[in-house]
Amino acid sequence: MAKPGVARPSGERLKNPAISRWLKTVPGWKAQDRRSSITRTYVLPGFRSALAFVQFVGELAEAHDHHPDIDIRYKKVTLNLSTHSAGGLTEKDFALAREVDAR
Amino acid sequence: MAKPGVARPSGERLKNPAISRWLKTVPGWKAQDRRSSITRTYVLPGFRSALAFVQFVGELAEAHDHHPDIDIRYKKVTLNLSTHSAGGLTEKDFALAREVDAR
Repeated sequence: MAKPGVARPSGERLKNPAISRWLKTVPGWKAQDRRSSITRTYVLPGFRSALAFVQFVGELAEAHDHHPDIDIRYKKVTLNLSTHSAGGLTEKDFALAREVDAR
Repeated sequence: MAKPGVARPSGERLKNPAISRWLKTVPGWKAQDRRSSITRTYVLPGFRSALAFVQFVGELAEAHDHHPDIDIRYKKVTLNLSTHSAGGLTEKDFALAREVDAR
């Protein structure tokens, strides 16, 4: 397992034990779809805050060249991260999740 | 049926014949969930354009005080409109849909 905060997260698909370890580094995120993705829902104060949060996530996504699925339901924003090219979770997903939560 | 472009769209639930008429005014939008909502997916040139489009829709939503569900899948943005307080489609949904497409 690479160290959290690794500069160049690997795009190799993680195995179950590694996923378990990485999950501990991103409280609030949950694995789903047979551990092929991670998801978290954020509740913002209102719709405008939700939009601003989406812009912030979008900037990070561009910087990482890794783009979460984003669902906006008024003031709730759900992110879903997976590395489609690897067919599941990689360090890239956890690296971006960690950075979103470091805001 | 109120005229399209009506200043104050009604929040009353539309009946089937009215929905059919309104649908003709928003090409590209489709009714779903037993005609309780309308949806359209926009394919933008890239992720940044998708984010900008979401901001644009967000501003309109605030102006209308009517907020679509918004799903971002990289450069695809899906909007879903329904008037939850009315339990289905109202003029509010079509008024916002028309304004999004007048961009």
